[in-house]
Amino acid sequence: MNSKMNKIEQLAVIGTGVIGNGWIARFLAMGYDVVAFDPAEGAAERTRLAIERAWPSLEQMGLAEGASTARVTFVPTIEEAVKNADLIQENVPEREELKKNVLKSIDQYAKPEAIIASSTSGIKPSTLQEGLQHPARLIVAHPFNPVYILPLVELVGGEATTSSIMERANQFYQSIEMKPLIIQKEIEGHVADRLMEALWRESLHLVNDGIATTEEIDAAIIYGAGLRWAQMGPFLTFHLAGGDKGMRHMLEQFGPALKLPWTKLEAPELTNDLKEKVISGCEVHAGDVPIAELEVKRNEFLVKLLDLVEEYWHEPNKVSS
Amino acid sequence: MNSKMNKIEQLAVIGTGVIGNGWIARFLAMGYDVVAFDPAEGAAERTRLAIERAWPSLEQMGLAEGASTARVTFVPTIEEAVKNADLIQENVPEREELKKNVLKSIDQYAKPEAIIASSTSGIKPSTLQEGLQHPARLIVAHPFNPVYILPLVELVGGEATTSSIMERANQFYQSIEMKPLIIQKEIEGHVADRLMEALWRESLHLVNDGIATTEEIDAAIIYGAGLRWAQMGPFLTFHLAGGDKGMRHMLEQFGPALKLPWTKLEAPELTNDLKEKVISGCEVHAGDVPIAELEVKRNEFLVKLLDLVEEYWHEPNKVSS
Repeated sequence: MNSKMNKIEQLAVIGTGVIGNGWIARFLAMGYDVVAFDPAEGAAERTRLAIERAWPSLEQMGLAEGASTARVTFVPTIEEAVKNADLIQENVPEREELKKNVLKSIDQYAKPEAIIASSTSGIKPSTLQEGLQHPARLIVAHPFNPVYILPLVELVGGEATTSSIMERANQFYQSIEMKPLIIQKEIEGHVADRLMEALWRESLHLVNDGIATTEEIDAAIIYGAGLRWAQMGPFLTFHLAGGDKGMRHMLEQFGPALKLPWTKLEAPELTNDLKEKVISGCEVHAGDVPIAELEVKRNEFLVKLLDLVEEYWHEPNKVSS
Repeated sequence: MNSKMNKIEQLAVIGTGVIGNGWIARFLAMGYDVVAFDPAEGAAERTRLAIERAWPSLEQMGLAEGASTARVTFVPTIEEAVKNADLIQENVPEREELKKNVLKSIDQYAKPEAIIASSTSGIKPSTLQEGLQHPARLIVAHPFNPVYILPLVELVGGEATTSSIMERANQFYQSIEMKPLIIQKEIEGHVADRLMEALWRESLHLVNDGIATTEEIDAAIIYGAGLRWAQMGPFLTFHLAGGDKGMRHMLEQFGPALKLPWTKLEAPELTNDLKEKVISGCEVHAGDVPIAELEVKRNEFLVKLLDLVEEYWHEPNKVSS
């Protein structure tokens, strides 16, 4: 394949709900032409409104040269939408049979070298590759709402996916200012949604058992861990909570708490192997930056963040100014 | 009790690890005198260093008049630490028997009207009240690291706790610029740690099963959900993800996903009762602010946050400037 063939210039979006429209807004802001397809009545008008709502944020973040809300075209068939596309982003509802049928149509009409990226939040790419003529170019590219602002996109290849396809996709999503996370092992729900689901299910249990209201649970996140998680994930956060000895001390001190009846989620056994994976993971991630220095960075960030969020926390009893 | 007796002026901190020192730093910054006790060798010196590390952030957030790092005194016994205190914050290691013994000593020497607040992350206050002479004034006040920056504190009363004690504690923690969350029902792990533990356990499963590294899991949080959770918790976030119909649409569309094998955490059954609790919880929390307006607020916040965090995300391969 020569470099001209590799170039991603024309984009197609199939399925224009909240996620599909989020992709369209991001693609347009990055200066692309987008061809869209959705069989629902009024889809083009809803997309126009969604773009209008997203655009002020995109302007604030900085538009690419030539970016325009007008550069999206709705067409009446999948064939027309995908035939000239270099990358097709699929966002139809999360039902396996429906997704597989739509992906088969896309595969049939798309250029063989075009990348087909499914936004599925749960289905494995190998499942979606079944029955395709060119399964190698089917990947999962799972974004997060609002797609036009949040940088995370999980990239997952299936059994048939080649590393050059993954590399092209990785470069493309980076070029539209995203942070691709390449998931090495297929699993239902990928990684981010498994984590969110665990917290979500526990939240539902707490509401169901009458322990806390939805609003109290939201408060329990935003005023505490939520502030930290915008900068550091759960591992690096606990690495710092362990004091100067980091995660090693943390696991010694709080490891036994895994046996306690907290949460409805059964804990894995904290074997030496798992301990070492967690500790060395944190140490490699921290690099040669000492904990004290990470702590300074964390504190500077949190102080600035607190300044920022006080204006934006949604407190129902606070009259909005 | 007259209002003079209610006034909280003198503070004691028992146990000066990471959490105890965090409390001391916050109390000092708010202009209080603090008397501290910790039996460990070198504790006073470690506290001095911890305050020194915290102080630049506290200065940046704004010190109270007269606030000084010098206004902490270490004393050799629990009796001396607590005898004149109006509020005693206990932070000894998370072992039930140890905590109960220390709390009994505190109870014995403290003024009867003093509030005793335990920082326990997991033990129920009723358990800690067992055997105290004045159990009514024992509460849980569970903070989050770094205590001198994060505003969340979970307040939990035990069976013996009176509502006037809870109200005094609530007012005190608000006065030191915290966001108290009053937990109505005692439960091991309270609320915030149950949520964090669910996410933490799922993270450990993913590492254990070889799906993702600690660094990848951190990335899966910070570049996606973590950004949202600094402003809105899981419920309000999903309320917005449901589009203009909010949580009601969200549960219709994604409720069935609770049956999928995502996460190791078993989901509660989504009964009509639970559905209604969740939907009305979100609707009450949102107040009369329409989803579109919440969305504007969210977007404005996220755009500013992205600007802020880019400087602070810890990427190991990025040379720090």
